[in-house]
Formats: sequence, structure tokens, C-alpha cells
Amino acid sequence: MGEQKRPFDLLNNSLNKPVVVGMKAGLMMRGVMVAYDIHMNIILDNAEIIVNNEVQRKLGETLIRGDTVIYISPSKV
Amino acid sequence: MGEQKRPFDLLNNSLNKPVVVGMKAGLMMRGVMVAYDIHMNIILDNAEIIVNNEVQRKLGETLIRGDTVIYISPSKV
Amino acid sequence: MGEQKRPFDLLNNSLNKPVVVGMKAGLMMRGVMVAYDIHMNIILDNAEIIVNNEVQRKLGETLIRGDTVIYISPSKV
Amino acid sequence: MGEQKRPFDLLNNSLNKPVVVGMKAGLMMRGVMVAYDIHMNIILDNAEIIVNNEVQRKLGETLIRGDTVIYISPSKV
Amino acid sequence: MGEQKRPFDLLNNSLNKPVVVGMKAGLMMRGVMVAYDIHMNIILDNAEIIVNNEVQRKLGETLIRGDTVIYISPSKV
Amino acid sequence: MGEQKRPFDLLNNSLNKPVVVGMKAGLMMRGVMVAYDIHMNIILDNAEIIVNNEVQRKLGETLIRGDTVIYISPSKV
Amino acid sequence: MGEQKRPFDLLNNSLNKPVVVGMKAGLMMRGVMVAYDIHMNIILDNAEIIVNNEVQRKLGETLIRGDTVIYISPSKV
Repeated sequence: MGEQKRPFDLLNNSLNKPVVVGMKAGLMMRGVMVAYDIHMNIILDNAEIIVNNEVQRKLGETLIRGDTVIYISPSKV
Repeated sequence: MGEQKRPFDLLNNSLNKPVVVGMKAGLMMRGVMVAYDIHMNIILDNAEIIVNNEVQRKLGETLIRGDTVIYISPSKV
Repeated sequence: MGEQKRPFDLLNNSLNKPVVVGMKAGLMMRGVMVAYDIHMNIILDNAEIIVNNEVQRKLGETLIRGDTVIYISPSKV
Repeated sequence: MGEQKRPFDLLNNSLNKPVVVGMKAGLMMRGVMVAYDIHMNIILDNAEIIVNNEVQRKLGETLIRGDTVIYISPSKV
Repeated sequence: MGEQKRPFDLLNNSLNKPVVVGMKAGLMMRGVMVAYDIHMNIILDNAEIIVNNEVQRKLGETLIRGDTVIYISPSKV
Repeated sequence: MGEQKRPFDLLNNSLNKPVVVGMKAGLMMRGVMVAYDIHMNIILDNAEIIVNNEVQRKLGETLIRGDTVIYISPSKV
Repeated sequence: MGEQKRPFDLLNNSLNKPVVVGMKAGLMMRGVMVAYDIHMNIILDNAEIIVNNEVQRKLGETLIRGDTVIYISPSKV
């Protein structure tokens, strides 16, 4: 039945694809994940800060510090 | 009387089964746990953010960072 | 007068007995402690979230992450 | 003039004596300290949660996780 | 197709360029990043604290402690 | 011009002298510092909790956990 | 064009000079930095707690714990 999946597989499979990132302090960002490391530090390209499902601020390329990440999910849009 | 149970046994026994995850910052998620590691990083498939017992947002496959987990419990539904 | 007691003795003595767990973010849980490890990760069986001395939610078997624990106390009921 | 005192001397001198424990999240507990370790995990016997100088809840024997401790002081009563 | 990008590449590419830094406790700073290290400690030159898109305070050269960083993004202005 | 001063020199020079300790969660204590270690765990003798420049509670000898310390300053009174 | 600057250079260059220190919990201090270490523990001489640009409290020589520091900036006044 194949090998057991590991949590970082999701990061690897999401490279160069759009993701949603839930962060501490109630922040949410959306963008294309172009890099990550073992601390979950990630770079989003075309990053946008989302508030109530609306774009509050466009940041462009952005480094997010891993210890502020709550969840990361591939985005459908 | 058998071997002593260990906390991570629950994660292993919950693979590919629905779980509820209580998280810091008052978040709760529900989904099928398809991966975990020793830091309690987990992947939920068909993840949903739950607020007041209602689905607030469907996220699909989602990586949850271990240090934001408060509790994980197999879900009955 | 015997050997000096150590904090984890309480966990060992509470195995398979009901405990109350005070947790960060104002959560309190009650259940039968069936497993623990050196990080204070624990499994409660028949876990219940308690608010104002009333059961708010029944979770069944639940893994509680050690770094969210404030206190653990054998329960009299 | 004798040897320099060290912070953990207070814990050692307080074994089997009543203490007050100030904890994060605004909690205060009182009880007889019957065990401690190098992480400041402690066991209080006859532990009570104190709010506004009144007993809010009697917990009996209680393990307090060291990283939630703010201060520990021998109690006069 | 070339080498995989890593999160700290963004810091290296932003040296001596203007950046926006989102920080814990709701702070945001803007300035020219003239130094960083592996802990994400950074020095901004001509640092300004930004509140509601307006400059609240000019700090000049400023060391920002890495563990307070939430995100770092090259600034377009 | 002599040797460079180090932060812990202040602790060493303050032994057996009155200090003010600013702590997380808005607490402030005053007392005579009779012990410290490399984690900044300290013992204050005749410790008092101070609120709005007034003594709110006399604690006597008190162990303060280092990671709750914000600042320590020799007290003039 | 010379060597790359590192974040701790700012601390070294600020020795015996006035600095402003932004700290967690909304505190800000001003004083002359007379010592620092690799944890960013620092000693300020003539330290003052600043609230809304006014001196709220004069502390004299003060040890600030590094993990409470948000930013450090040379002060112009």
C-alpha cells in the first residue's frame, strides 16, 4: 500500500503552487510557495494579507518565519 | 496485563481516521489524519475549521504545525 | 523515612485513574489517564472539556500536548 | 561567612512545608510542597486554587508544570 | 531548471534594500536591511515604525530581534 | 580603561541588596536579592508585590523563575 | 567594499551610548548601554521607562533580559 506519508511532504508537493497560511496573531496570507526549510520558514511569492476573505495588503515576495505558522494548506483559487 | 500505552500510540492508531484538533488561538479543526511526526506536525485531509460546532471554512489537505496543537481526539462523526 | 518523592511519581501513580488537567488558554479537562511521557504528553480516556464545573464537550480518547498542561491532579469523582 | 546561596535552595528548604505558587494565566495555588525537580515541576499536597485570597477549588495532590511557575514562596499560614 | 530556492535567499537578496518587517505585538517597521544572521536578527537603517500606513516614529539604525519577526518583505517604495 | 562589563555583573553586584524586578504578566516585586543562577532564577528576601507604587502583598522569601523576568534594577529605597 | 555587517555590530557600536529599547508587553526603556551578551541581555545605565514619550519611572542601572527585547536603537537625544 505504499510508504507512509510525512507532514513535510505537503510542503514539498506545494512548491510553486498557491497556498493559504494561517499565522499567529490572527494573520492569514495567500501566495505561491517558492521555498521552505526544516523550520517551516517559507517564501511566498505575490503574498497577500487576507482579512475576512478580502485582500488587505499586497506584499509581493515575502519570507514568513516558521514559528509563526499555524497551518499551511494548498489553495484552490 | 500487556505493555504500557504511550501518548503517540493515539496518533498511530488514528492514521487515516477522522480526528478533532484543538489548537492555540481558539482554533479547532476536523479532518482525516494522514500523516504525523515526532513534533506533532500533522496533515489533515479534508480539513475544516470549526467554530461553535459549525464549519467556518473548508481547507482541504492541511499541514498543522505541532507546537500549535493543544489536543487531538478521534472524532466520532 | 523513605526515598524522596519526584514530580513524575504523581503521573505514574495516576495511571488508569481519573484526573483533572488544567491547561493553557483557560481549558480544563477530566478523564482517565491511560498514558504519559517525559514531555507530559498524556492520553485521557473518556475525556471531557469542563467549563464552570459542567461538561461542555465529550471527546472520548484524547491526546493532550504536554506544553499546554498547567497542572494535573487526581480527581475524586 | 558561609557559602553562597542558590535559587533551588529555597525549593529544597521548603520540602514538606506550605508554599504559595504564583502561576501564569493569573492562577495562584497553595499547598504543601512534597516534590520538585530541576525543571521546577512540583507536587503540592492539599493544593488549593486561590482567587482574591479565598479558596476557589480544592484539588488535593497536584502536579504543577515548571514552565507555568512565576514564583514560589514559603507560606506563613 | 536550476537550484531550489531557500527561505534565507530572500534575506540575502534584500541586503541594502528597503524592506517591510511585520513583528509580534502588532508592530510594523520599514527600513533598509543592512545586516541579518541565522536567528533572523536584522539591522534596519532609517527604520520607521508604521501604524495604519503612516510613520509613527523614526528610529534610525535599529536592531530587530529575530524571534519577534513574523514576516519580511522587500518594499516597493 | 579596564575590562568590559557583562550583564550578569549587575546581579553579582546586587547580592544582598534591595532590587526591583519587573516581571511578565504586569507583576513587579521588590526585595533583597540573596541568590541568582545563570537562568536568572533569583531569590528575593522580604519580597513584596508592588502595584501602582504600593505594596499589594508581602511574600517573605520568594523564588522567582528566570524566564518571567523582564528587568532587574537595584532599588534606591 | 569591505566586510558584511552583522546584527551584533550595532550592540558593539552602541556601548556607552544612549539607546532606546522596545520590549515585549508594550514597555519602552531609554538609557546608556554599558553591557550586552550573546543572549541580548543588556545593562542600561540611567534607565528610564518611557510611556507616550514621557518618563514614567527612573530605574537607574538596569539589567534587561534578552528574550524580552523587540528592538534596540541608538537614541539621538
